[in-house]
Amino acid sequence: MLTVSCAFDAGNIEVVDQRNPADIQLNIRKDHQSDFFQWFFYRVQGAAGQQLRMRLLNADQAAYVDGWEDYQAVASYDREHWFRVPTRYENGELVIEHQPETNSLYYAYFAPYSYERHLDLLAWAEQHSNCRSVRLGQTLDGRDLDLLVVGNPAVAKAAVWVTARQHPGETMAEWLVEGFLERLFDNDDAQARRLSQQLVFFVVPNMNPDGSVRGHLRTNAAGVNLNREWMTPSMEQSPEVYLVRQQMAQTGVDLHLDIHGDEALPCNFIAGQEGIPDTSAAILAAEQRFQEVLMTANPDFQMERGYEPGVFGEETLTMCSNWVGQHHNCPAMTLEMPFKDYDLQPDPVQGWSAGRSAKLGASLLDPIADWLQNRDRTESGDAC
Amino acid sequence: MLTVSCAFDAGNIEVVDQRNPADIQLNIRKDHQSDFFQWFFYRVQGAAGQQLRMRLLNADQAAYVDGWEDYQAVASYDREHWFRVPTRYENGELVIEHQPETNSLYYAYFAPYSYERHLDLLAWAEQHSNCRSVRLGQTLDGRDLDLLVVGNPAVAKAAVWVTARQHPGETMAEWLVEGFLERLFDNDDAQARRLSQQLVFFVVPNMNPDGSVRGHLRTNAAGVNLNREWMTPSMEQSPEVYLVRQQMAQTGVDLHLDIHGDEALPCNFIAGQEGIPDTSAAILAAEQRFQEVLMTANPDFQMERGYEPGVFGEETLTMCSNWVGQHHNCPAMTLEMPFKDYDLQPDPVQGWSAGRSAKLGASLLDPIADWLQNRDRTESGDAC
Amino acid sequence: MLTVSCAFDAGNIEVVDQRNPADIQLNIRKDHQSDFFQWFFYRVQGAAGQQLRMRLLNADQAAYVDGWEDYQAVASYDREHWFRVPTRYENGELVIEHQPETNSLYYAYFAPYSYERHLDLLAWAEQHSNCRSVRLGQTLDGRDLDLLVVGNPAVAKAAVWVTARQHPGETMAEWLVEGFLERLFDNDDAQARRLSQQLVFFVVPNMNPDGSVRGHLRTNAAGVNLNREWMTPSMEQSPEVYLVRQQMAQTGVDLHLDIHGDEALPCNFIAGQEGIPDTSAAILAAEQRFQEVLMTANPDFQMERGYEPGVFGEETLTMCSNWVGQHHNCPAMTLEMPFKDYDLQPDPVQGWSAGRSAKLGASLLDPIADWLQNRDRTESGDAC
Amino acid sequence: MLTVSCAFDAGNIEVVDQRNPADIQLNIRKDHQSDFFQWFFYRVQGAAGQQLRMRLLNADQAAYVDGWEDYQAVASYDREHWFRVPTRYENGELVIEHQPETNSLYYAYFAPYSYERHLDLLAWAEQHSNCRSVRLGQTLDGRDLDLLVVGNPAVAKAAVWVTARQHPGETMAEWLVEGFLERLFDNDDAQARRLSQQLVFFVVPNMNPDGSVRGHLRTNAAGVNLNREWMTPSMEQSPEVYLVRQQMAQTGVDLHLDIHGDEALPCNFIAGQEGIPDTSAAILAAEQRFQEVLMTANPDFQMERGYEPGVFGEETLTMCSNWVGQHHNCPAMTLEMPFKDYDLQPDPVQGWSAGRSAKLGASLLDPIADWLQNRDRTESGDAC
Repeated sequence: MLTVSCAFDAGNIEVVDQRNPADIQLNIRKDHQSDFFQWFFYRVQGAAGQQLRMRLLNADQAAYVDGWEDYQAVASYDREHWFRVPTRYENGELVIEHQPETNSLYYAYFAPYSYERHLDLLAWAEQHSNCRSVRLGQTLDGRDLDLLVVGNPAVAKAAVWVTARQHPGETMAEWLVEGFLERLFDNDDAQARRLSQQLVFFVVPNMNPDGSVRGHLRTNAAGVNLNREWMTPSMEQSPEVYLVRQQMAQTGVDLHLDIHGDEALPCNFIAGQEGIPDTSAAILAAEQRFQEVLMTANPDFQMERGYEPGVFGEETLTMCSNWVGQHHNCPAMTLEMPFKDYDLQPDPVQGWSAGRSAKLGASLLDPIADWLQNRDRTESGDAC
Repeated sequence: MLTVSCAFDAGNIEVVDQRNPADIQLNIRKDHQSDFFQWFFYRVQGAAGQQLRMRLLNADQAAYVDGWEDYQAVASYDREHWFRVPTRYENGELVIEHQPETNSLYYAYFAPYSYERHLDLLAWAEQHSNCRSVRLGQTLDGRDLDLLVVGNPAVAKAAVWVTARQHPGETMAEWLVEGFLERLFDNDDAQARRLSQQLVFFVVPNMNPDGSVRGHLRTNAAGVNLNREWMTPSMEQSPEVYLVRQQMAQTGVDLHLDIHGDEALPCNFIAGQEGIPDTSAAILAAEQRFQEVLMTANPDFQMERGYEPGVFGEETLTMCSNWVGQHHNCPAMTLEMPFKDYDLQPDPVQGWSAGRSAKLGASLLDPIADWLQNRDRTESGDAC
Repeated sequence: MLTVSCAFDAGNIEVVDQRNPADIQLNIRKDHQSDFFQWFFYRVQGAAGQQLRMRLLNADQAAYVDGWEDYQAVASYDREHWFRVPTRYENGELVIEHQPETNSLYYAYFAPYSYERHLDLLAWAEQHSNCRSVRLGQTLDGRDLDLLVVGNPAVAKAAVWVTARQHPGETMAEWLVEGFLERLFDNDDAQARRLSQQLVFFVVPNMNPDGSVRGHLRTNAAGVNLNREWMTPSMEQSPEVYLVRQQMAQTGVDLHLDIHGDEALPCNFIAGQEGIPDTSAAILAAEQRFQEVLMTANPDFQMERGYEPGVFGEETLTMCSNWVGQHHNCPAMTLEMPFKDYDLQPDPVQGWSAGRSAKLGASLLDPIADWLQNRDRTESGDAC
Repeated sequence: MLTVSCAFDAGNIEVVDQRNPADIQLNIRKDHQSDFFQWFFYRVQGAAGQQLRMRLLNADQAAYVDGWEDYQAVASYDREHWFRVPTRYENGELVIEHQPETNSLYYAYFAPYSYERHLDLLAWAEQHSNCRSVRLGQTLDGRDLDLLVVGNPAVAKAAVWVTARQHPGETMAEWLVEGFLERLFDNDDAQARRLSQQLVFFVVPNMNPDGSVRGHLRTNAAGVNLNREWMTPSMEQSPEVYLVRQQMAQTGVDLHLDIHGDEALPCNFIAGQEGIPDTSAAILAAEQRFQEVLMTANPDFQMERGYEPGVFGEETLTMCSNWVGQHHNCPAMTLEMPFKDYDLQPDPVQGWSAGRSAKLGASLLDPIADWLQNRDRTESGDAC
């Protein structure tokens, strides 16, 4: 008998009716204490050789209904390789059709990144002599909030901050961090070797472990969207932001990247501080140049599409990279990756994937190197 | 600042006082709705280079206090390689002393086997063409209870059942299953190739996923010791047993192994049906021979020490292998592995370990092959 | 244009006519200064998508024409995985038919084992703390003849010698040694851990490096069959045997295995000293029991077929294991593996393979352990 | 007893006196039919725990005596990881001092790249669907000369040629090609995915297999320096060049890189066509920009030091990249890597290494992408 289940890390589904393989009816559960939902992750068992038609009935009430347009769900047999399966959004439902080869397999919104892998990542990172982990404090569910420090802190060194996965359903953010760190620790990579000597990196691979384990799309254990908390975080409802802000105050921030996934746009893009009045021309130029260098280093990145400046209105300064940029007077950008694929460089099998996210993360060293070079030049009195 | 935490898969500890690295005071939490406890698994952060002294204050009330005698706790930096650290039981407390090299590391009762790894194991197993997974039903916490079937079922083929980890804190049981399956799927191994053709294997890698995730020692989500439920299991308090018993009724059982860890004895041993009156001489002989062949194949197994026959008294027939053996009239044995080390073949670095458990699992194919040969001979009318 | 070439390690072929893919005519080259030949190994290029028919014209003059019966050649695209391709012996020619998927691929008599891999094996072995390499001397082509010593030599410890690949075209012999050593170095394997403490192993992974690199079937650089040199080896024509015999004289030999491939029989078997008069009953019994235990441990081994005792006539005592057994008064056996497949446990894709050879090598620890146990018992005065 | 040997792929040494570990006297053998020598590669056995002092007596007659200045030899136990050992050039001798931990280890001029690995590389490359191998012809020793074609050839696509290891002792050239191909085949790398669609790559990983196997520094089997043969190659003395030139005539060349190692300079650099009169400004500009982009992508590359333009005098147009650039009227450059280390970004353990060479090879995709973009822009009529 076919069954659908989700009692595992980041699992999220609600079975409405699973009796008929040709008409499996499901709902996505809301984030706890919140109305947001879009992340789904479930296991099907007992379906080998059957043609499945799975309807996510409440898709029309998801956080970003536009996200379903041209979206293909991912599936995996081995929980490691995820491939796209035929999916369409019709009549307010997300319909996934697929014929599994084995009894057990998984479907998800995007390749999951489990908390166990997160802890493995922290442990692996700290095996490198120039990295140490720092526990910033505790989340509402009692989990550790961890920071990785790469490089030996020194007064003269600039501080580069990378924060990822405030929105737990945007797992590509942590896949990106994994690729970023892998390159940073590669001793044969001259860029990495130089940057890890000249800079100090402060990396929070997962800003929202509670939401991640709970299978949330956008919020923490209290149903709070952390990326609207940066003006007034509190230990009561957004300790994750409170603790990171506090640490940033100690280390300073010279460059900041906040990593996200975007439900709608079929491309990678960066949102900087261009919509915020009073941002200095130098910072805006640095952010512009950062994107140009990234686009050169990695053609999966593009600059033509993105958010309209000012689109977030009054919320703007409650958002992570904006708040950090204004408060620390530095380049601070939000990097968004697609849940779908990059339409101009498509990969029909995988779409945008964990692997490509990691590669984009590795590519970030190039614009960081360029930024550092320009910064050093400027600081030593040269014209930029 | 040093902190102790356990908010992760199978984590179990209670912090009494963590202010002084030289005197960290901890308690092991009881299994939910139960008084059993002995499994611990916690993370320490912020301790690089400090000499730690950790006291588990309530060790004297643990399930098997004799288990602490000559026991050494395990630690890991990378969550993969676990090594023993100086430990002693004194004044009713378990005292662990260790100086970590990095900020973050883990201590545990034995090398943990996470639920994520469990799901990976199921997925990996089903990639082999002669294996399929079957979901038997649902646990009290809503998790899937999975069975792996290896080989193509046929009337003429004998059914070999392996059940593991009724007691979730006995993680060596699932490590053993991993090694057992790895060999069974090795196409270059003639023993494995032959047995997977001539037999059908029914393997439950984890009988108690709820207790495993909760960090329990011996019980499921309802605080029930599954290995006392085989006479009268119920969907209300022991669905894990109920569902497996039901499946056994369908497939039949010709040989059964139930895999455990033993807190006290420093060796591997098997408890068969020798203490149960009316067990046939043929079955007792088969169980005896099984052990002899296993001991020959793997010197980490021994036959001199073990449980006294009859030690479980009235509970005897409520226990898994005993009930199965009596009910299905077949050889059925409980295989016990140590939490400590095998004192006669010690490994000072690892003690008894995940790797050695896996190797012992691989070795099980040898006595199974021998049992099959004798069985075939007997059934075809030859003298044994 | 299609071309056939063999200018690489162990390459052996002679192109007669390669103009027509449907009728490629080839000869196997004789061993240098010898009439033996049967080993072939060549590369085809430029053949993607073409149906090839390759005729080895002089197959009827090969060393063991019976070897071609039911024989299938092996092929590989990646030089790592070798699979069987349709082959038949007709009209005195070996005809191989195959349609390659890519331009470049290789055909061989059996999965090759290169000299580079041999040197890697030696280097890998010596990374283990209980192993050291000893250079015994120099071959006629100037190569090193290497011995691996595993375990700490001590007077009281028995010496187990394993020699392999006197006949260089019998590459399965070195694959077996690789599997033997892998298990011996596996610290989680109780059998291995115990044996490497209680015994000293002297392993010559390749007795004939010159013939191996030259692509010979049976002889060294001087065209000499080393396995007929053990009575009267000389530094001039058989230094490989001379040097090993000399070393054996120093260490003594308590058990000896000489590893070979047999062209004709489709099974693994052992030839002991049963055909040699005056061999003690105890030794013959030990050899018999060795085989029984090996057959139990690994069903790829069998005892029904093998050489007829006495078949080698006057040459008997010039052969390695016979000479060693008689001279050192110990069990000494020749282990033969097939070039074809084990017909009673066939693998249609690979036939007998590198992987199965390695697994058989690993299995040798079991009869060695059994032999050691009986020996200790005998020496301590017990009846055997 | 300590012995020095070199009878293996690329081995090169001559023992003068090996009786005293504290004064081992060696010579480097000349390339066959040539006076060039500098490449050495030998094995030492029986030296565990002894302090060795090895003198290469004829170092003062090597091809580039300046190469010994500040040079450190490499050593390896496992034939995979190579580390630098204390070395000095004094009194016309190269003196290497080292105390080996195990009996067997290797010393070399640079991390060797064996012919077996070369064949593995070809086989691995062709497993990718967009790559095929082409055998161009045969070397003087009868080996295959292989070309890898990556991408689907089409009239409109530009042809990028990479040739490596004309000088066989410059093994870093083939390590670079390995890294180059690894990135080119990485489907998650957007740069690679795009370039392999838009361009066709013609890669000769090893221009000189005969010299490589023979352990030569600079010449082929006939003692000919291939990099002086491009004006007038012949099948008799330089078939390697003849065959590649012929193939280039068929495919055309739009961009060419010839990969080398330089004995003297402690840095990576490129020599373009700047010293050749009549080279167009556009080509010189493209070559200049190529280097700038490479330097940005990989700080192990630099532009301050290099050959003086015109230093090769009359030989200039007999050299590979110069001849190709002039004949095909395209950017054509010689990339040189150090045998020592890059002094401004030193790695005291490895020096310049196989791993860093591979990484530099991977980085080549960035300037190639930049070149392609500018080329497309120019060809479509835009101003450059």
